[in-house]
Amino acid sequence: MAFRLPAAALRPLRSSVHLKPTMQQTRWLATPTPFPVTQDMTSSRGPTAMVFLNMGGPSTVDEVGDFLSRLFADGDLIPLGRLQNYLGPLISKRRTPKIQKQYAAIGGGSPIRKWSEHQCDEMCKLLDQISPETAPHKPYVAFRYANPLTEHMYRQLLADGFGNGKGGRAVAFTQYPQYSCSTTGSSLNELWKWRQRLEGKAGPLDDGSDGTIKWSVIDRWPVHPGLVEAFAQNIEAKLQEYPPERRDKVVLLFSAHSLPMSVVNRGDPYPAEVGATVHAVMQRLGHVNPYRLCWQSQVGPQPWLGPQTQMSVEEYIAKGQKDLVLIPIAFTSDHIETLYELDEEVIGESGHKDTVKRVESLNGNPVFIRALADLAKTHLDSGIATSPQMSLRCPGCKSDRCHESKKFFAAQELA
Amino acid sequence: MAFRLPAAALRPLRSSVHLKPTMQQTRWLATPTPFPVTQDMTSSRGPTAMVFLNMGGPSTVDEVGDFLSRLFADGDLIPLGRLQNYLGPLISKRRTPKIQKQYAAIGGGSPIRKWSEHQCDEMCKLLDQISPETAPHKPYVAFRYANPLTEHMYRQLLADGFGNGKGGRAVAFTQYPQYSCSTTGSSLNELWKWRQRLEGKAGPLDDGSDGTIKWSVIDRWPVHPGLVEAFAQNIEAKLQEYPPERRDKVVLLFSAHSLPMSVVNRGDPYPAEVGATVHAVMQRLGHVNPYRLCWQSQVGPQPWLGPQTQMSVEEYIAKGQKDLVLIPIAFTSDHIETLYELDEEVIGESGHKDTVKRVESLNGNPVFIRALADLAKTHLDSGIATSPQMSLRCPGCKSDRCHESKKFFAAQELA
Repeated sequence: MAFRLPAAALRPLRSSVHLKPTMQQTRWLATPTPFPVTQDMTSSRGPTAMVFLNMGGPSTVDEVGDFLSRLFADGDLIPLGRLQNYLGPLISKRRTPKIQKQYAAIGGGSPIRKWSEHQCDEMCKLLDQISPETAPHKPYVAFRYANPLTEHMYRQLLADGFGNGKGGRAVAFTQYPQYSCSTTGSSLNELWKWRQRLEGKAGPLDDGSDGTIKWSVIDRWPVHPGLVEAFAQNIEAKLQEYPPERRDKVVLLFSAHSLPMSVVNRGDPYPAEVGATVHAVMQRLGHVNPYRLCWQSQVGPQPWLGPQTQMSVEEYIAKGQKDLVLIPIAFTSDHIETLYELDEEVIGESGHKDTVKRVESLNGNPVFIRALADLAKTHLDSGIATSPQMSLRCPGCKSDRCHESKKFFAAQELA
Repeated sequence: MAFRLPAAALRPLRSSVHLKPTMQQTRWLATPTPFPVTQDMTSSRGPTAMVFLNMGGPSTVDEVGDFLSRLFADGDLIPLGRLQNYLGPLISKRRTPKIQKQYAAIGGGSPIRKWSEHQCDEMCKLLDQISPETAPHKPYVAFRYANPLTEHMYRQLLADGFGNGKGGRAVAFTQYPQYSCSTTGSSLNELWKWRQRLEGKAGPLDDGSDGTIKWSVIDRWPVHPGLVEAFAQNIEAKLQEYPPERRDKVVLLFSAHSLPMSVVNRGDPYPAEVGATVHAVMQRLGHVNPYRLCWQSQVGPQPWLGPQTQMSVEEYIAKGQKDLVLIPIAFTSDHIETLYELDEEVIGESGHKDTVKRVESLNGNPVFIRALADLAKTHLDSGIATSPQMSLRCPGCKSDRCHESKKFFAAQELA
């Protein structure tokens, strides 16, 4: 079945975008050129590679060791300074048996690959419909610490006909709604590293380009209405499990992965963006229930941002508040931090498994997948390579890698 | 001139409110009673005392000593534990000469009283127009550490005919847009303390009431559209001072008063709500400029939430980013933290006074004052005493005062 050409395809670029035009785009608007017409207008700018970035997780218990060794080697996530290469392997080796047991307890591996591939596939199908001018959209997943690794994704892109003198367009779409240098920043640095290794030496072609892949980045989306709606619906569904007379008094505990205070104090934007997500969800819910934002998964002796999720649950129970709903607010699919840490440890050890509950993760939620498609469509229409916010380093940033990586993505010209 | 009766006065209560009705209100809706008709329907529920809560500041240099001694005596703001009564006076006495010099440098005193009284007066005039059913609205200001103190405000309320067997309605309206236990919480605890001292022993009257003042609370409003609009307009005005070719690259540095990490880790809601304000303002501005949220006014050796404002300015300048606009995002009028700390210290010592600037504070901004009136009108229409969020203590809270104060306000019945 052929795509019908939607009205949107006939509008000039940026028409549906909320960002102000940049200087360059203002000039473009001032001297309009005819909309380019090709024989196949429905895919005049495709194909487009849609690359989901996430941390990933071991799909089997046997992969736990490799996963942890990559994780503790990442100075963007766990800053161990000069001792990274020495301490990282030590810590990861020591933690492997314990973490293997946790993955065994949740069914033998993380479901994050399954969900990421499903979400990306389904989003690309929707995009082919709502953005035919950039179709076909080809789904890729690039994990930071597990298969499919960023390197493998990049090699696959090249094998599939992107780059290598043929150019082509790829969108790096972070699956962390809120930006942290530890998460999205680390994934982008890794993507930049492999891009430099695998395409960095490309020379100029006859047409003046260098035939490499043109990258653009969707770097954060903490208050996208579809994301907010998906969270809110899941919370409403969970609240239905409480008797009506107790329902409005249930305390909503939003829980996000914590950060070391050294990262917070450097100026990482994540805590403020998580706050924005929480407030947007509460507005959508009409502020009926009391709530708090707390932070989970602290490791090691250095100070991390609090209040801690487990402490918060224990303290509320001690105060007599036993109706609690936990909401993982900074991750879009199930993983060890929901299935083990929240379900087995925080809830399991609370002594009140009947009244302390967790909302469903977004996983295959169709409202969420439509939100992803809407985000991607808006981005593709915008013609921008990165948000102005992404190009700003943290005030306390000392990382040359961050500097170079941000410069690279911000300089991408999407003709 | 007589007020015309607006259509709103004929609608049942809560009609314009976004909050879901509580159980009690659901019952009320299920069995509607006729709207009460009085001879003077335009003020059937007035008069209403509108009480602005804020920290206050010394209006003259001579008041600095008293101001600081009250400030360092407040365990909600500066938790010194058992040593509060000993350490507080010591610290305040030692700091007085230095702080006196700062107030001398900004003209001999804080303008916060002038602005608070102006804002409250103007809001009450607007309310008399848009909420005639609760008119007349009588303006009061209650500061935590300076005149007019909460005690004096409460005595004035009684002298003006509220309470003392005559009942009457008063709204405690925090002037901190984002809720912290250190600020709004402390003001409410103080209000509750004086209410107990001055009205706590009232006995039952013939009509079954106790004739005391009925209190309700506007406890937070971090993303009110009028607040966001006022901030955004001030930022846009400041950006106009930069040449067009540099304007979109100016970094916006939102600056809020920091908190000790002990308060953050106890579960204080303030950091997340400040994050929500920042995001709402950036959305209104179309995310054109890069930005960061940073925190100012840390004192003492214990860890506070960062990144610090002064460090952020220094680091950005060191990175070559000299176009910076500072935005005080958690306070609604000028005070020592804007006029001295930001203007004299952060900007004055930056070496780049020509390119590092501060936006105007909200002060007498009519957009902001309309926002205050809209917040008050919505609250008065809602018929609720406190938000569900206000009645929830922090997970790590150990304060009996917080517990009792929250219980008191949440239990107020607005007939």
